[in-house]
Amino acid sequence: MYGDRVARWDRAVEWPLTIAAVVFLVAYATQILARERGSASAVAEAVVWVTWGIFAIDYIVRLVITENRRRWFIHHLLDLAIVILPMLRPLRLMRFLTILAIIQRGAGSMVRGRVIVYTIGATLLTIFVAGLAVLDAEQGNHGPIQNLGDALWWAFVTITTVGYGDYFPVTFEGRMVAVGLMIGGIALIGIVTATLASWIVEKVSAEAKTAAATQQQVEDLRTEVAELKDLLRESLTSKQTRESDIA
Amino acid sequence: MYGDRVARWDRAVEWPLTIAAVVFLVAYATQILARERGSASAVAEAVVWVTWGIFAIDYIVRLVITENRRRWFIHHLLDLAIVILPMLRPLRLMRFLTILAIIQRGAGSMVRGRVIVYTIGATLLTIFVAGLAVLDAEQGNHGPIQNLGDALWWAFVTITTVGYGDYFPVTFEGRMVAVGLMIGGIALIGIVTATLASWIVEKVSAEAKTAAATQQQVEDLRTEVAELKDLLRESLTSKQTRESDIA
Amino acid sequence: MYGDRVARWDRAVEWPLTIAAVVFLVAYATQILARERGSASAVAEAVVWVTWGIFAIDYIVRLVITENRRRWFIHHLLDLAIVILPMLRPLRLMRFLTILAIIQRGAGSMVRGRVIVYTIGATLLTIFVAGLAVLDAEQGNHGPIQNLGDALWWAFVTITTVGYGDYFPVTFEGRMVAVGLMIGGIALIGIVTATLASWIVEKVSAEAKTAAATQQQVEDLRTEVAELKDLLRESLTSKQTRESDIA
Amino acid sequence: MYGDRVARWDRAVEWPLTIAAVVFLVAYATQILARERGSASAVAEAVVWVTWGIFAIDYIVRLVITENRRRWFIHHLLDLAIVILPMLRPLRLMRFLTILAIIQRGAGSMVRGRVIVYTIGATLLTIFVAGLAVLDAEQGNHGPIQNLGDALWWAFVTITTVGYGDYFPVTFEGRMVAVGLMIGGIALIGIVTATLASWIVEKVSAEAKTAAATQQQVEDLRTEVAELKDLLRESLTSKQTRESDIA
Repeated sequence: MYGDRVARWDRAVEWPLTIAAVVFLVAYATQILARERGSASAVAEAVVWVTWGIFAIDYIVRLVITENRRRWFIHHLLDLAIVILPMLRPLRLMRFLTILAIIQRGAGSMVRGRVIVYTIGATLLTIFVAGLAVLDAEQGNHGPIQNLGDALWWAFVTITTVGYGDYFPVTFEGRMVAVGLMIGGIALIGIVTATLASWIVEKVSAEAKTAAATQQQVEDLRTEVAELKDLLRESLTSKQTRESDIA
Repeated sequence: MYGDRVARWDRAVEWPLTIAAVVFLVAYATQILARERGSASAVAEAVVWVTWGIFAIDYIVRLVITENRRRWFIHHLLDLAIVILPMLRPLRLMRFLTILAIIQRGAGSMVRGRVIVYTIGATLLTIFVAGLAVLDAEQGNHGPIQNLGDALWWAFVTITTVGYGDYFPVTFEGRMVAVGLMIGGIALIGIVTATLASWIVEKVSAEAKTAAATQQQVEDLRTEVAELKDLLRESLTSKQTRESDIA
Repeated sequence: MYGDRVARWDRAVEWPLTIAAVVFLVAYATQILARERGSASAVAEAVVWVTWGIFAIDYIVRLVITENRRRWFIHHLLDLAIVILPMLRPLRLMRFLTILAIIQRGAGSMVRGRVIVYTIGATLLTIFVAGLAVLDAEQGNHGPIQNLGDALWWAFVTITTVGYGDYFPVTFEGRMVAVGLMIGGIALIGIVTATLASWIVEKVSAEAKTAAATQQQVEDLRTEVAELKDLLRESLTSKQTRESDIA
Repeated sequence: MYGDRVARWDRAVEWPLTIAAVVFLVAYATQILARERGSASAVAEAVVWVTWGIFAIDYIVRLVITENRRRWFIHHLLDLAIVILPMLRPLRLMRFLTILAIIQRGAGSMVRGRVIVYTIGATLLTIFVAGLAVLDAEQGNHGPIQNLGDALWWAFVTITTVGYGDYFPVTFEGRMVAVGLMIGGIALIGIVTATLASWIVEKVSAEAKTAAATQQQVEDLRTEVAELKDLLRESLTSKQTRESDIA
């Protein structure tokens, strides 16, 4: 019954939360870009607070309707941190992965197809969000990252582990974003390589099987012939025995 | 019938398009290197326009002779972009991969052999084209990349994800080239690793199979001996029965 | 009997040595951070010496109670170096991996689960220890690494092979720490990729097996039907033979 | 007969050539380090020429004693380049890999063991040789690499694809060495990852097999019981038939 309530809530808020995440992304980006031009957007500020309210309500409702509140609370400390700490605000955009899950349904049921769609989507989202977040942290400081273009370029250079060093964060928050991106980069290399490895291993083993299959067929034929020979010999012997019996 | 027409067109333009790509590469390189020396090559300019015409005609003919034009149009938006946008001009050199496909026929039918030939060819081509394209974008700007030698060196440092930072692009177009190279670098690491992994997994499993085969042979021998014993016992019993029958 | 003595010693010092490692880590960090502020901590200095004594005693006892001392000595030259050389002092913290082994027991017996827990733990420990060690080496030199925050940031940038170049070691000891971190980085990429590859290969092969299983079931059914048909035909023939025999 | 001659020559020069490579390495290093201190070593120069003579003679003898000279010449163009071009001189040290092959015999016959020994040996040799070669190329130029310590540090930073950018080559020869090191770095990441992947895949599959084996044993037991039941039923039927026959 508790599980029922949770599942119904999940279905009810799936789209509202995703739309809230999109709206939040736009407002968050507007806010940061406005600050870049030295002005402040009161509307964007208000929208960020409203979407925050939606996520906070979702958190509270989930905590209330769950069966074992203490256990749920401990297992969802990250969710609490995302709602409370302004620094973790960009993580609210993880909601977007729900959209990816929906797009994925179209990518068929193959493991590799789903991994590819998810990886591309998550990588692009991570780069965009990390670009915004690092700009938010670095703006007005003495570091080299001071506009969105450079921030996105830096995010790309970091997630691919190239790291030219023409741009780098100097604030604690900016460096935390960088650490997240670097971990994402290691994971990205890992996923690309693993998917390719799985594909090559499969192709090579299919190749080997084709060769083995031909060998097997020849071997099977040889066995069949040998058995036929045995059957003939046997039937001959049995005929002779019968003849000798008759004789 | 439509498929027939497309296949015939493919065969008819295979070599002309590949030659057009080679000619375009030479003209494109000449144009950029001429600009490096502060002069302009009218001939190279003309040749670039002629090869562009060939690619544009190929695009239009394909659109006309295909069965489902709307579907083809949507699935080939990238081809349209390559023909129309001057920024994507270097991508016309992807035509070269056709040559790789021809060279590959000589590399035998093994999956790994083909992957290796294709990877080396595509990597060298990518480095050369990216070097030209980044020079095209950065020339005359305040960035550090100002001659072909440095551009190729930068392309190498980027595709291997080393990223010293002694050279880096500062223009939007140059950074787009860099993003392409970085993605290529991730793919390169992935392919090299996956090919090696496939090779090592195969060798290790062959090793295991050799050991298993010896065990299997001993086991087979044991079974054979056991069956022989059973046959002997059976024949003895049947003989005794016959003797007792006779008796 | 010798093996018994060694095992008993292992069990007896497991916790004392782990606690000594924790105490050493705190004292070592205090010492370096005190130096950062231009002061010196006599207490931390004393504690570092006491924990050193504990590790030295452990080394000597192990050398004494082992069966083949010469062989043990040669196989444990690294242990000797860690005890004697102040430069290798941070390696005493490898003792922490014992704690990881204990945490691991909770991660279940699955290979991948254990690999993940161990990798995360060892990576975080390596970054922290390398940060301290590089600060120890670089402090007071002309290099850019002069406080713990920058040292940890540098360690992260290095182990992920990003390498911006905003911070880098300039002393021999600092560079040795960097070499260790880089090797750790290569290993980290390798482990992440390999774990993902193993997971994807398994998922893809499970997918293939499900498809193969259905095919196999149909094939099995076909065989069963064929055998049934043969049995029927045989029994019919034998019946006819018998009838003709009777006739 | 030709093959015999080649094999005999191989055996005859195995040790002389390896020793020549060691002597060449020492002389080459001395020469570069002497130049670093502004002096020149006439002895080292002479030794480099003598070892060059040995490699040249080896090349000529091999060309003479081979069966199909034209084919051998085309397949060994790299060997010719190494002997003739001073720039490729460091590649003569590839001879060292023969020593690795000898050490390897001690590492047992396991594929992974041999791969690990070879990778570590080849990586260390590559770093050392690349350090010397880049110093040889960069010395006296305006680049940052001006002593062996920095050159080795740079080689390490490059082969691990970290690439801080505190040191980088500026000459064409130095950049060629860097390109070789970067390719080595990609290969290194690939080999480490592939070896780990092979190991994890094996462990995980062993785990799965243990579980499958238990299932199989239960299944086997069930089959045995079923067969026993059938045998019993058959023997009963045959007994009844006999009895009815007797009756």
